[in-house]
Amino acid sequence: MRISGKLRKDAGHIWKKIFEHPFVVELYSGTLPMERFRFYVLQDYNYLVNAIKNFSIICSRADTADVVKEIADVIHLEATSEFNGYEELLNKLGYKIEDAMNVDAFPINVSYRSFLLATSSLRPYQESITSVLPCFWSYSEIAKHHRDKLSENKNEIYVEWASVFLSGDYLNLVNKLRNFVDTFCEDYPYGKLRDIFITVSRFEYMYWDAVYKMESWPV
Amino acid sequence: MRISGKLRKDAGHIWKKIFEHPFVVELYSGTLPMERFRFYVLQDYNYLVNAIKNFSIICSRADTADVVKEIADVIHLEATSEFNGYEELLNKLGYKIEDAMNVDAFPINVSYRSFLLATSSLRPYQESITSVLPCFWSYSEIAKHHRDKLSENKNEIYVEWASVFLSGDYLNLVNKLRNFVDTFCEDYPYGKLRDIFITVSRFEYMYWDAVYKMESWPV
Amino acid sequence: MRISGKLRKDAGHIWKKIFEHPFVVELYSGTLPMERFRFYVLQDYNYLVNAIKNFSIICSRADTADVVKEIADVIHLEATSEFNGYEELLNKLGYKIEDAMNVDAFPINVSYRSFLLATSSLRPYQESITSVLPCFWSYSEIAKHHRDKLSENKNEIYVEWASVFLSGDYLNLVNKLRNFVDTFCEDYPYGKLRDIFITVSRFEYMYWDAVYKMESWPV
Amino acid sequence: MRISGKLRKDAGHIWKKIFEHPFVVELYSGTLPMERFRFYVLQDYNYLVNAIKNFSIICSRADTADVVKEIADVIHLEATSEFNGYEELLNKLGYKIEDAMNVDAFPINVSYRSFLLATSSLRPYQESITSVLPCFWSYSEIAKHHRDKLSENKNEIYVEWASVFLSGDYLNLVNKLRNFVDTFCEDYPYGKLRDIFITVSRFEYMYWDAVYKMESWPV
Repeated sequence: MRISGKLRKDAGHIWKKIFEHPFVVELYSGTLPMERFRFYVLQDYNYLVNAIKNFSIICSRADTADVVKEIADVIHLEATSEFNGYEELLNKLGYKIEDAMNVDAFPINVSYRSFLLATSSLRPYQESITSVLPCFWSYSEIAKHHRDKLSENKNEIYVEWASVFLSGDYLNLVNKLRNFVDTFCEDYPYGKLRDIFITVSRFEYMYWDAVYKMESWPV
Repeated sequence: MRISGKLRKDAGHIWKKIFEHPFVVELYSGTLPMERFRFYVLQDYNYLVNAIKNFSIICSRADTADVVKEIADVIHLEATSEFNGYEELLNKLGYKIEDAMNVDAFPINVSYRSFLLATSSLRPYQESITSVLPCFWSYSEIAKHHRDKLSENKNEIYVEWASVFLSGDYLNLVNKLRNFVDTFCEDYPYGKLRDIFITVSRFEYMYWDAVYKMESWPV
Repeated sequence: MRISGKLRKDAGHIWKKIFEHPFVVELYSGTLPMERFRFYVLQDYNYLVNAIKNFSIICSRADTADVVKEIADVIHLEATSEFNGYEELLNKLGYKIEDAMNVDAFPINVSYRSFLLATSSLRPYQESITSVLPCFWSYSEIAKHHRDKLSENKNEIYVEWASVFLSGDYLNLVNKLRNFVDTFCEDYPYGKLRDIFITVSRFEYMYWDAVYKMESWPV
Repeated sequence: MRISGKLRKDAGHIWKKIFEHPFVVELYSGTLPMERFRFYVLQDYNYLVNAIKNFSIICSRADTADVVKEIADVIHLEATSEFNGYEELLNKLGYKIEDAMNVDAFPINVSYRSFLLATSSLRPYQESITSVLPCFWSYSEIAKHHRDKLSENKNEIYVEWASVFLSGDYLNLVNKLRNFVDTFCEDYPYGKLRDIFITVSRFEYMYWDAVYKMESWPV
C-alpha cells in the first residue's frame, strides 16, 4: 500500500468525523448560516498567507533541484490562482482584502498554522511534506463525499466554492502532494509520519469545529 | 515605563484571569484533586524539552556574543536544575521519566509549544525573547499573589512545588528575562511585541484551563 | 539618498574591481577562453538551485502578505524562466542538466551560497533582502558598463548571455529588489545592512575571480 | 567499522595535509612567528561565538530529550570553560575581549562558519552533528600527532595552548561527539555524511592555511 494510503487509513476515524461535521454537511447542503461561512472565509486569509510561507520553508529543505522546482510550483499556485480565487470570494461576500487582513486569528487558526510552521522549520522535510497533505487531500475527499448534495444546494456561493475542490486542477495538486509523500518518505520511519498526519488531521477537524462555533479567545 | 511593565499592564485582564483560575487557586490552597496535578505534571515534560529547544533557537538568532552567552546560560539552567527538579517531582508522584515521555501531549500543549517554536524560528529575536517571558513571569506573580495561602496548604507536594517560584534563584531568572526584553526591544515596534505577549498570555491561561479539565483531543 | 544607492556607493571600490575583472571584460569583449565560460556555467547550477531555496527562506520571514506574494513571484521567476534559460544555455554548450548537477561546487561557490543561506535562516529579513541584491544588481550594472563592447563581440553565446541582463524584464527584477531594500529597511540599522552588502559584493568579486582561475579545492 | 572511523578514513588525505601544515607544525615546534598566532587567536572569537550558535541550532533539531540535554551540555561547555579559556589566552597576549570582537572575520572564517550554520539550519541533524566533528576531532588528533614536539617547544603560550587538546576533558568531548555521529547517523545515507565531513575537513585545512598567510579580503 502507498504510504499516503496507509496514513489515510490510520486517520480514517478522524476523517470520518470531518465528513460528518455539521459545518461541512450544512455547507454542501446549503443550509449553513451565512454568518458562519463569512467567519470561516475571513479567517482563511491568515491560513493562506502562512501556507505560502510554509511551502517556502519546505522548499528550502528539499534535497534535490527537482523537488525544489516542484515545490516552487506549488508556492506559485498558492500565491496566484489560490489567492486570486480567495479575493474574488471575499468580493462576492462584500468584503475587501483589508477586512480579512485585519481579522484576529482565532486560537485553532494560530495553533494549526504554528504547528505547520514549527514542523517545516525544525523537522526533516519528509515530516513537513506529510504535514501539508491532510488539508489539501481532505478538502478533495470532502467534496467527493458530499458532491451529490450540491445539486440540491440553493446557495450559489457555496456551490461555486465547493466546485473548486472537484476540479481537475485541484485533483492534480492533491495527487502531486500525495506523490511527494509516497516518493520522498519511502525510507523514513513510518511512526513519525503517522504522528504528524494524525495531529494535522485532528487540527483539521478542530478547525471546522471552531469556525462552526465561531470561536474566539476565551480571555 | 519599562517595556516589560507596559506589556504586563496591557495583558493585565488576562493575567487576572490566570490568578483566579481554579487550577491555580486550588493548587495554592491545597484543595486541587491530585489527579489533576498528576495530569499537569506529566504534560509538563513535553513543554520543558521544547522550552530548551526554544531557547536554543533564540540563542542562534542573538545579535551579540554577550546575549549568546546569557541565553546559553538559561539553556543550561533549564537542561540541568529545572530538569532535575522535574524528575524529582515525578519520583515523588511515583512516576518514572519514561511515564512522562510516553504521554501524548494534549492540544493546548502542542499549540502553545508550536507557537513558541514557530516564533523563534521565523521572527526577529526581539519577538521571541518577548514570547518566553509570560510563562516564567506569570509563575512568579502567581506565587506572589497566592503565597499567603501556602501556610494553610496541607499538601506538601504542592507547597514544595510552589516554593520554587518564590525562591531568589527563580526571581533572578525572571528579572534576567525581563531585562532581556527591556534592553533588546527598545527600538522594536511595540505593537508587535504586544501582540506576541497577549497571545502567549492567552495560551498560558488556556493551558491552566486545559489541565484543570484534563483535556484530550476531541477526535 | 535611497538606501540601495548608499549601499552601492559604499561598495563602489569593490564593484569597480568587479567591472574591471578579466573574466567580465573578456566575456563582454568575446576573448574569454571558452573553457572558462564552460566552467562558470556548470558551476552556476548549484548557485541557481540555492538561490531559489534562499528566496524561499526570505519569503517565510516576510512581515506582510504583500511581501510574501512579491517574493513568491521572484521564486517563480527563478524556478521557471531563469531555470529554463539556464538549461538552454547548457544545451548550446553541449551539456545536459545532469552534467551540471554532478559538478562539484568549488570553494567560493559553497562559501557564497552558505553565507546567503545562513543569513536568510538566522537574520532578520531586512538583512537577507539586502544580501541578495548585489548579485542581481551588479550583473545589470556590468552589462550597462560593458554594453558597447558587445557590438564587437564575435562570440554569439556570450552576446546572447549578456543581452539577458540588458533586457527590460531583468531591469524590472533588479528595480523590484532595490525597492524591497529601500522600502523594508528604512528603519533598520544601516551599519548592519552595509556589512552584509559589502561582504556579498566581495563574494561576487571572488566568484568571478574563482571561475577565471577555474578554482578547485586545495585539498 | 564505526561511522566516524569510516569518515575519518575517507578524509585521511585531507587530515594528513592538516597535520603537515606549516602553521600546525611550527606551532607545536614553537617556531611559529608570534604575529601569526596572534592573528589566529583574534580570529577565533568569531568562530567560537558561532560555534555556540551552531550547537544551539542542532539542539533545536534533536529528536529526543536525551539528545537535547546532551547538546545543551556542549553548549554550556562552549559558553563557559571554552570561552573563559579563550579570554585568558587573549589576556596573556595583551588583548582585551573587545580587540577580538572588533576584528573583521577573514574570508575562510566567514565561509566556514556560514557552511556550518547553513547546514544546521537547513539539513537533518545527522548532517549537522557530522559537520561539527572534524574541528574538535582533528584538534585532538593534531595534538596526539605532534605531542612529542612539545617537550622541545620553548614557547610557553604555545605549549599551554596545545596541552588543552591532550587533556582528558577534551578527549571526552571528542568521544562524545564521535558517539553522537556513530549513534544517530546509523540509518542515514552514508554518502551525504561523507560529503559533509569532507567539505568541513577541507575548510579546516583552508582555515589553517589562511591564518598562516594572515589572509584578508582581496577587495
